[in-house]
Amino acid sequence: MSDVKFEEISPADFFYRNRDLAGFSNPARSLYMCIRELVENSLDATEVGRILPNIWIGLEGADENGERFFTLTVKDNGIGVDGNVIPKAFGTVLYGSKYGFKQSRGTFGVGGTMALLYGQITTNTPFTVISSRGGKEVHEYKMMIDIVENKPKIIDHKVHPNKKKWRGTIVRVTLEGDYSTSRPKVLTYLEMTAVVNPHANIVFVDPKGRVYVFRRVIEKAPVPPEEGKPHPLGVDVETVNRLIANTKSRDVKSFLVNEFQRVGPKTAEEVLKLAGIDPEKRLRDLTHDEVTRLVEAFKQYGKFRAPETSTLSPVGVEFIEAGLKSIYKPEFLHVVQRPPASYSGIPFVVEAAIAYGGGIEPSEEIQLLRFANKIPLLYDEKADVSWKVISERIDWASYKVQKGMPVLVLTSICSPKIPYKTVGKEAISDRPEIERELTMAIRECARALRLYLSQIEKRESAKKRLSVYARYLPMIAKNAAYVAGTEPPDVMPLLKSIGVTAKMVDEEMKALERELSGEAG
Amino acid sequence: MSDVKFEEISPADFFYRNRDLAGFSNPARSLYMCIRELVENSLDATEVGRILPNIWIGLEGADENGERFFTLTVKDNGIGVDGNVIPKAFGTVLYGSKYGFKQSRGTFGVGGTMALLYGQITTNTPFTVISSRGGKEVHEYKMMIDIVENKPKIIDHKVHPNKKKWRGTIVRVTLEGDYSTSRPKVLTYLEMTAVVNPHANIVFVDPKGRVYVFRRVIEKAPVPPEEGKPHPLGVDVETVNRLIANTKSRDVKSFLVNEFQRVGPKTAEEVLKLAGIDPEKRLRDLTHDEVTRLVEAFKQYGKFRAPETSTLSPVGVEFIEAGLKSIYKPEFLHVVQRPPASYSGIPFVVEAAIAYGGGIEPSEEIQLLRFANKIPLLYDEKADVSWKVISERIDWASYKVQKGMPVLVLTSICSPKIPYKTVGKEAISDRPEIERELTMAIRECARALRLYLSQIEKRESAKKRLSVYARYLPMIAKNAAYVAGTEPPDVMPLLKSIGVTAKMVDEEMKALERELSGEAG
Repeated sequence: MSDVKFEEISPADFFYRNRDLAGFSNPARSLYMCIRELVENSLDATEVGRILPNIWIGLEGADENGERFFTLTVKDNGIGVDGNVIPKAFGTVLYGSKYGFKQSRGTFGVGGTMALLYGQITTNTPFTVISSRGGKEVHEYKMMIDIVENKPKIIDHKVHPNKKKWRGTIVRVTLEGDYSTSRPKVLTYLEMTAVVNPHANIVFVDPKGRVYVFRRVIEKAPVPPEEGKPHPLGVDVETVNRLIANTKSRDVKSFLVNEFQRVGPKTAEEVLKLAGIDPEKRLRDLTHDEVTRLVEAFKQYGKFRAPETSTLSPVGVEFIEAGLKSIYKPEFLHVVQRPPASYSGIPFVVEAAIAYGGGIEPSEEIQLLRFANKIPLLYDEKADVSWKVISERIDWASYKVQKGMPVLVLTSICSPKIPYKTVGKEAISDRPEIERELTMAIRECARALRLYLSQIEKRESAKKRLSVYARYLPMIAKNAAYVAGTEPPDVMPLLKSIGVTAKMVDEEMKALERELSGEAG
Repeated sequence: MSDVKFEEISPADFFYRNRDLAGFSNPARSLYMCIRELVENSLDATEVGRILPNIWIGLEGADENGERFFTLTVKDNGIGVDGNVIPKAFGTVLYGSKYGFKQSRGTFGVGGTMALLYGQITTNTPFTVISSRGGKEVHEYKMMIDIVENKPKIIDHKVHPNKKKWRGTIVRVTLEGDYSTSRPKVLTYLEMTAVVNPHANIVFVDPKGRVYVFRRVIEKAPVPPEEGKPHPLGVDVETVNRLIANTKSRDVKSFLVNEFQRVGPKTAEEVLKLAGIDPEKRLRDLTHDEVTRLVEAFKQYGKFRAPETSTLSPVGVEFIEAGLKSIYKPEFLHVVQRPPASYSGIPFVVEAAIAYGGGIEPSEEIQLLRFANKIPLLYDEKADVSWKVISERIDWASYKVQKGMPVLVLTSICSPKIPYKTVGKEAISDRPEIERELTMAIRECARALRLYLSQIEKRESAKKRLSVYARYLPMIAKNAAYVAGTEPPDVMPLLKSIGVTAKMVDEEMKALERELSGEAG
């Protein structure tokens, strides 16, 4: 009989063996992923300090003659990372600043390190991190990742004096890529990032030296999201046990009031009654079984207010408008921000926009731009809840939208926990609450679009109607006068009162003459 | 300025916080996932020992009156797990038997433990594992998982005497589920599992006591896949470093010959020449840079034979035929197994089948059954490479397939490394090599189907033609004889020679009379 070997592997090793899971499936997509992950770290590092981002991306190398090694450098003016934290922060998978109950672009503590790990795997060269928090020192590390142990291997560490009080982070990594294939995605990614981050300056210098500049169009940084307490509906037994281990509260009632949002003394008492637990009971005496009943009571209670939304930082109507206008200059644009909602105790806000005409290309399918926590999602569109909504939930014909029209739909979801389908963060799952909010938001935009399209229709049919008056009223008046044996009346005041000008009359008369002579000839 | 907290989390904690990634997104789907993961572990545990599987699945509980707790028990007759290994094997994420270069249903070392972790999170109760390898003892553990530490917490451990020499594993877990919603998926999953594992007995007793039996239809166990050496095209620097650390070879050349498939002494020398490395060089003197050059040389060499396929265990034409026939009894069935192919040095085999008519329901879209390493894939169909192939790569009209026909396509891919898009193992990515093999396989089936459909068409048009002869030839003969003043000749021998029977003539005569009298009246 066969035998079986058992082994345990580290998280770094897991993602090393299964990098497809994080989106690193081929040189083209991996290059795109590396740029994306590092840019998103930079945006988070500026947002948390309410800094107007200046992000510089440089890509050197060539994918000619079989040479596919590139050096990617991303530099930001974010809050920086302390020198002693740099090795673990960049050299450990599942180590990061991203685990609070707070909205951020990074979600899994995987992406940034995966980019560096990918570079190491494909080129076997170390990566470089230079950072300062604006103090006296700038730290420069040359590192690799010990994949088996999931820890950094420091190859070189220098400390430079920081005379100019520079603050920010520079990451440089060499990796195998395929820029000619991934170029369109990279440029679309940067353009879309600029749309929802119009307060950012983003500069990209590509391997041929072409410089792409996405200039700041709004001079204010958005309010950074706060870290919040958990909502009772979002917790399970494990979370409650962790909160118990870390709280300073001594009895169960004050524990509920102090450690959860939307729980006051009265609510706490009601919930504990439902759970059959004495509110005065000392927390450390709570049994395993009682914790389970407490979580059950949270679910059954049914009277909690919706989650707080201070943890959310939506893009904002103003920002979406500015972003879309700067790129598409549409003739019609309507942006909607829905009120906060929640799924399983986790708050989220949906925003949507419809733009029409201007620089938008007419196309068979409606164009969709998707965003989640201010990052554009470019892959796996048809697996995303937004695609489901625009293709299945909206009856476009009833909004006067036909195939081939220049229509663009933008959707944006923000939440401390976006329910992504994959570690690569490309498609959002169809949680019913999110689907409903998206449908409402897009319908509202679509109604505004219908109004606009109706006005165009009306204006055109009004123009048609007027041209009939302009053409025939003067003639009727002339003939009637002739029959009555009187002078023809001046119909121009009448025509003018309904919006027909002398010029229109003149043009219609000439057109009529041409038509009649055509008929005669 | 804001500050940032850093923390490191364990793999168990990562999947606890992001269970959507592994497919555990709501009670219905999670129940399905739990059944699936445990059944797949059981199938692997029998296959590795070349045992005919007997798998018993019991689900107790109810989803009425808001009660959604279920107890799931899965029992198999697999090779069993040693008593001292049980705690880690079932209580640690990323610990498993699945990490060799060998085909198996489990891929990530995540699924089985995730099922147990999910039960613990939702119900806060321990799970039970009972197992024996057929020796003197049966071990029974009651455990939970310490999520923060990613290690088992043993609550109870009993050792029973094993008088009957029982061998196998029983896992029992209590979890929050939604059986009424997930029931169709669960039953489809078991049915499809039976299709590609016709050597398995699978019994499922559902919460209402309904018993579903999928009986073994083939009395032989498939050859289990072997563990292989890596192919030079599938390795990177990290893998080579690990091989160097574990090899007994002392010089570079013998290292290549001993540790890789498809590398003999001559190939080794050619590769090393390309890399500029002395074949006699001692392995431990190999520099970082030389390892990198060696991997580059592997890629540039271009003359390796395709990967070995002994690591592969395809379903087999016989098994697919037996499986599909037992369930659909189709009037037409064609199964194709492609020769082994490879992507990035990883071997794979594609199998495909087309079935027509019989128990297959006519439908607008072609029905697709997808399998990977003998597990059915039921979610995210439209994100899968097989869907791409049948919807974009095959011109069905040219194979006489129209909408609304009862057509079913089965695809099966086996490989030591299936390029899944998600940890939940539901969709396979569109690697070009896999897409091409699938296209070839389905086209071959489609050609056979076209032939079959043509024969039906021909038979029908032949029948039509014959009925014309049967109807008019006797009459023409009679009239011609009358005009000529002779006796009518016997046309039956002539008619018989082209396949018309006396009965057909009789029927046609009667039909003709009815039509004529109808016309007259």
